[in-house]
Amino acid sequence: MRFDILTLFPEMFRGPFEESIIRRAQDKGLISIGLHQIRAYALDKHHTVDDAPYGGGAGMVMKPEPLAACIEHARRCNPKALVVAACPTGERFSQRVAAELSEAAGLIILCGRYEGIDERVRKLLVDRSISIGDYVLSGGELAAMVMVDAVTRLLPGALGSEESARSDSFSDGLLEYPQYTRPPRFRDLAVPDVLLSGDHARIGQWRRREALRRTLAIRPDLLREADLSAADRHMLAELEAEHG
Amino acid sequence: MRFDILTLFPEMFRGPFEESIIRRAQDKGLISIGLHQIRAYALDKHHTVDDAPYGGGAGMVMKPEPLAACIEHARRCNPKALVVAACPTGERFSQRVAAELSEAAGLIILCGRYEGIDERVRKLLVDRSISIGDYVLSGGELAAMVMVDAVTRLLPGALGSEESARSDSFSDGLLEYPQYTRPPRFRDLAVPDVLLSGDHARIGQWRRREALRRTLAIRPDLLREADLSAADRHMLAELEAEHG
Repeated sequence: MRFDILTLFPEMFRGPFEESIIRRAQDKGLISIGLHQIRAYALDKHHTVDDAPYGGGAGMVMKPEPLAACIEHARRCNPKALVVAACPTGERFSQRVAAELSEAAGLIILCGRYEGIDERVRKLLVDRSISIGDYVLSGGELAAMVMVDAVTRLLPGALGSEESARSDSFSDGLLEYPQYTRPPRFRDLAVPDVLLSGDHARIGQWRRREALRRTLAIRPDLLREADLSAADRHMLAELEAEHG
Repeated sequence: MRFDILTLFPEMFRGPFEESIIRRAQDKGLISIGLHQIRAYALDKHHTVDDAPYGGGAGMVMKPEPLAACIEHARRCNPKALVVAACPTGERFSQRVAAELSEAAGLIILCGRYEGIDERVRKLLVDRSISIGDYVLSGGELAAMVMVDAVTRLLPGALGSEESARSDSFSDGLLEYPQYTRPPRFRDLAVPDVLLSGDHARIGQWRRREALRRTLAIRPDLLREADLSAADRHMLAELEAEHG
């Protein structure tokens, strides 16, 4: 898949796109990434990319012309791409959205800055506006990195076998159970006996209960949408009773 | 504020921490950032940082000893810091959590990789586990960048005046209204008349209605917790009727 990123800060992407799974996916030819400096598409000699908002108010708004020209240039590099605006007023990013984006022919990701982009660019040229969470960031760059990482992991061949488990464990909608590795005792804390028992049915049951316990404690909202069996619901009732 | 980041991929942070507001906050002396390679704290000559999970299953778990040694080293650099694990099994990051973290004396952020960290490290040495969203990333590095950015923006003096507006507009719990800047007409789309009227009461009302409209359409879940006046509730009822 080809990603084209439209940004005022292309240098930000140097580290994140040169390491780990994203680096490897590029080396394998699974993905390619184009970085585009929006400022290069400004029309005036000062390379102005922002202007005051109509109607007043603090901050600056990203002007429509350079954005539109930059998107249209990226479209020529990535003709069937979906155009995504990374901005706080979008739908919330999730594993489901990542899966949808991974089916696209390509992605053009527009990184908003300042008070956001002129609304007409969104209406005319943007397919989806997406926010990675309910917090304020300095711009869409970190959000674009998050999307590229989450989407790349879903492309066939991107992950080594030891990395593929996590996505599976997330897909049932619960937080993952606690993990332990050697040594069996670390600073007076022992690994739970059951994990050393070799009894895979009991281990599976313990892990499921701990995943439910953690989700109940930290993210009870996830339980509403989680894929729960009758046995899960029974364990959950017990855990709720324990919590009093 | 001092941030110490514990990671297997310190090079990932090069771009993001050398640009924009995080760069400026460092130049002004408002924040400092230490990057620590966890692998340097491994005990064996192969610098092993991960091992197979007790109880079986795919993937590798981050071993407790190097993590603990690295956290304890970071604590000596940043004695009163809160220790945060960036990992998918934590509470969800939000602007409220960012505000809480910005009150800490310092932050040590541990970037999980693989199937996560040995649970005993969490019990003994981690104060808060935080997830930036319900999606699977290759590791905690992008999450750490997101947290550093969101927290730094909240430190007094970090933002220029033109940047401060956005956090304010987010704090009422609604998505922001649409923004427009010059030209008044762009490719057959005109700026809404009201924004050119100079009538600030009408502009304020239009913006509020559009913020409510957008939130209702894209993130209705936010309306439950938003700070709404009687006038807001009236507009919301009208908008709901319009949508049919």
